Amino acid sequence: MKHLLSIDDLSRDDVELVLDRAASFSEVANREIKKVPALRGRTVLTLFYEASTRTRSSFELAAKRLSADIVSFSAGGSSVEKGESLKDTVLTLAAHSPDAIVVRAPWAGTPQLVSQWTDAAIINAGDGKREHPTQALLDLFTMRQQLGADLEGRSVWIIGDVAHSRVARSLIRILVLTGVHVTVCGPPTLIPPDIGALGCDVTYDISGMSDADVVYTLRLQHERMTAAGLLPSLGEYAARYQVNAPRLSPNQVVMHPGPVNRGVEMSGEVVDSPQAVITMQVKAGVVVRMAVLYELLAGSRSDAAAKERALA
Amino acid sequence: MKHLLSIDDLSRDDVELVLDRAASFSEVANREIKKVPALRGRTVLTLFYEASTRTRSSFELAAKRLSADIVSFSAGGSSVEKGESLKDTVLTLAAHSPDAIVVRAPWAGTPQLVSQWTDAAIINAGDGKREHPTQALLDLFTMRQQLGADLEGRSVWIIGDVAHSRVARSLIRILVLTGVHVTVCGPPTLIPPDIGALGCDVTYDISGMSDADVVYTLRLQHERMTAAGLLPSLGEYAARYQVNAPRLSPNQVVMHPGPVNRGVEMSGEVVDSPQAVITMQVKAGVVVRMAVLYELLAGSRSDAAAKERALA
Amino acid sequence: MKHLLSIDDLSRDDVELVLDRAASFSEVANREIKKVPALRGRTVLTLFYEASTRTRSSFELAAKRLSADIVSFSAGGSSVEKGESLKDTVLTLAAHSPDAIVVRAPWAGTPQLVSQWTDAAIINAGDGKREHPTQALLDLFTMRQQLGADLEGRSVWIIGDVAHSRVARSLIRILVLTGVHVTVCGPPTLIPPDIGALGCDVTYDISGMSDADVVYTLRLQHERMTAAGLLPSLGEYAARYQVNAPRLSPNQVVMHPGPVNRGVEMSGEVVDSPQAVITMQVKAGVVVRMAVLYELLAGSRSDAAAKERALA
Repeated sequence: MKHLLSIDDLSRDDVELVLDRAASFSEVANREIKKVPALRGRTVLTLFYEASTRTRSSFELAAKRLSADIVSFSAGGSSVEKGESLKDTVLTLAAHSPDAIVVRAPWAGTPQLVSQWTDAAIINAGDGKREHPTQALLDLFTMRQQLGADLEGRSVWIIGDVAHSRVARSLIRILVLTGVHVTVCGPPTLIPPDIGALGCDVTYDISGMSDADVVYTLRLQHERMTAAGLLPSLGEYAARYQVNAPRLSPNQVVMHPGPVNRGVEMSGEVVDSPQAVITMQVKAGVVVRMAVLYELLAGSRSDAAAKERALA
Repeated sequence: MKHLLSIDDLSRDDVELVLDRAASFSEVANREIKKVPALRGRTVLTLFYEASTRTRSSFELAAKRLSADIVSFSAGGSSVEKGESLKDTVLTLAAHSPDAIVVRAPWAGTPQLVSQWTDAAIINAGDGKREHPTQALLDLFTMRQQLGADLEGRSVWIIGDVAHSRVARSLIRILVLTGVHVTVCGPPTLIPPDIGALGCDVTYDISGMSDADVVYTLRLQHERMTAAGLLPSLGEYAARYQVNAPRLSPNQVVMHPGPVNRGVEMSGEVVDSPQAVITMQVKAGVVVRMAVLYELLAGSRSDAAAKERALA
Repeated sequence: MKHLLSIDDLSRDDVELVLDRAASFSEVANREIKKVPALRGRTVLTLFYEASTRTRSSFELAAKRLSADIVSFSAGGSSVEKGESLKDTVLTLAAHSPDAIVVRAPWAGTPQLVSQWTDAAIINAGDGKREHPTQALLDLFTMRQQLGADLEGRSVWIIGDVAHSRVARSLIRILVLTGVHVTVCGPPTLIPPDIGALGCDVTYDISGMSDADVVYTLRLQHERMTAAGLLPSLGEYAARYQVNAPRLSPNQVVMHPGPVNRGVEMSGEVVDSPQAVITMQVKAGVVVRMAVLYELLAGSRSDAAAKERALA
């Protein structure tokens, strides 16, 4: 692994490697001293063109727990506001010799572009509606914690606004890669017609959800949806697609990438129930991001690249 | 001590413990290398729903001087803007396994709420008009530096806008707890009718101020006051309540939580005089916050909680 | 060196000292572990009254690579917004006992003022249209990398909006100090009438540029210029003053302080050509700022001040 741009770049072995490493970092996270010197003296830059405290701080904590230095670039207050092109911004960042750059941008494909202009390892922290691979890795990590390491043949339902969700696109990919059966469900206006090409089933009817091992609910950006005429009303959406107690059976694992609209895509009762493992997903986020940083900057698969750079 | 939510939670012994510890950290602050490894590998999160560079950076410096890692969450750019509930935000933060969370919010009682949703030690860095306990501790520390460790029977006057001041409420509590005689003074519109219940005297006449050992002036948020009809005019306020040279006697210690409106609640001449110890208060802020973090995360009183967590 | 306020404060020996130190830090920057413990336990504060990610983060990286702690104060969200005077802000910062304060402000002379109110070493990171000395040092460092250590008698052309450029003012000073021949060139409306007093030639005609060893292009803040009637049109400006391939000869070194307006003061083709060393300037920024911090806080010239403080 040189970069983490898309789940499509990962083999099943890559996924195992990262999740195994994350499991070993989980033990560190339970210690009184949660820090290891693995990346001491390495520099991680974050380049975020979209506001995000959750994802940014998860990466920040991950880097700090590996003893790396982290410096943040955000669009606000930077040259980006002065109209600098993405390329010039990246060349500037690259001149600081970072070991990794974590990129989030509203434009699909940004991390790929960035990777062409620097030797740093690039990590996609969300690009447009395209991908959010570390979220998919942490979701898979959480599912394995709940259901065991072998997910082959398990069933995951992804419910809600698939159309605007990079989380869904990365998650479908990684689940299909690891042999999980995926069904996406939501109103026709929020399901892209071609989503089945990723290897999942599609339905507009939530009644079959009771067969799922995992019910994964997406955030509904309802203000935007209603304004755009994509949703008739929140009440009608909730009536047909809300994940709530009457629709769930007791053994189903309920997940959500956060932040939840309580009472919209999920009832508050379910959010607060032990079935919902939303905070475990957040917890998994730090160790999975530690694992990704470690594999890219110091792991076994990065040796070739490291040697290359050492010789350059 | 498990949390620092309110001065009311502290015994006189707790206060002594924190201030003694702060005194020992004062020596560190005078060294060339101002850092100790006491909290290496521990994580402190800040959750600020109100803008504040002074308090936030004081905590940040305190954490760094103890070698802790610190990660900031601010309302701007975070899920808070996406309408996430306080509870969900805190559950997310808690999932990062922080050792402490420093909370500032415009809503009284927020730190108490937060403490119910996480195992982390919670430090109140200001909640509405209710309390600001680390400010009270640093003010007491500064008074002891000026007047000696035993303040029993000393007199402190708190002058100005008591009604809108969480600083005043915490300060009155800690002074009364340590046997200091407190008088609050200001225009009737800015003195809450029930403030005497905290154990202080109330007066609308500043002439008795000459008896005080310490004159503690509060910030007047004059734009808001004038607009709300609570103040006739700044000129009239200053004429009746400004802390200035003619009203002070030479041995009185003058304090202010900052930032000062020069020429409003205090004359510029007094701000710049040796009687005013405002920058010593700021200096005390770092060592007192080091002491609070240390006592909560590694101190003698935190053993029980630490063992509890270690066994959990 | 106690502070870095203006290039005028530097002797030629001071400049050599900083650039030699920067060269030694360049070797650190090429290592896998880019960090040295030189300033462990020292605190650097940044006080920025103007938005800047590039310069701020360059200082931040420099401080981190020296193992110093760095805490940022920006105007947004701070007491500055509450109308606190510069002096009171600085006295507050000074009370935190920082070893250095990095200051950027829109008012010429701010760093000098700040240096009167604190014992910390002050570094000017840009004050109004007056100076930006670390930029000049990094530019000189880059020129020496390109042309060799001895620049005596070399020719540098500085082209564009000299009137509004603190970069130009510092750069002219340092080049004249080190024996370089400087020509400034641009439209008469953008060249201050008295600039020649700094020891440079002035011309409004770009045709002589072919004699320069280095062509240094300034950023054109064109929106402001056009609105103020200082520029007839961007097209006309580019036609007469753009640094582009037809105007350059192959051996000339092209520099720019960034961010570039591609197609305005410089053609995109030149930005992307090997002649342009813009990213090397950025790279030099980190090591030069490491050198400045090191010389001020731990270097041979700072001994006297250090002893003074140790005895205080």
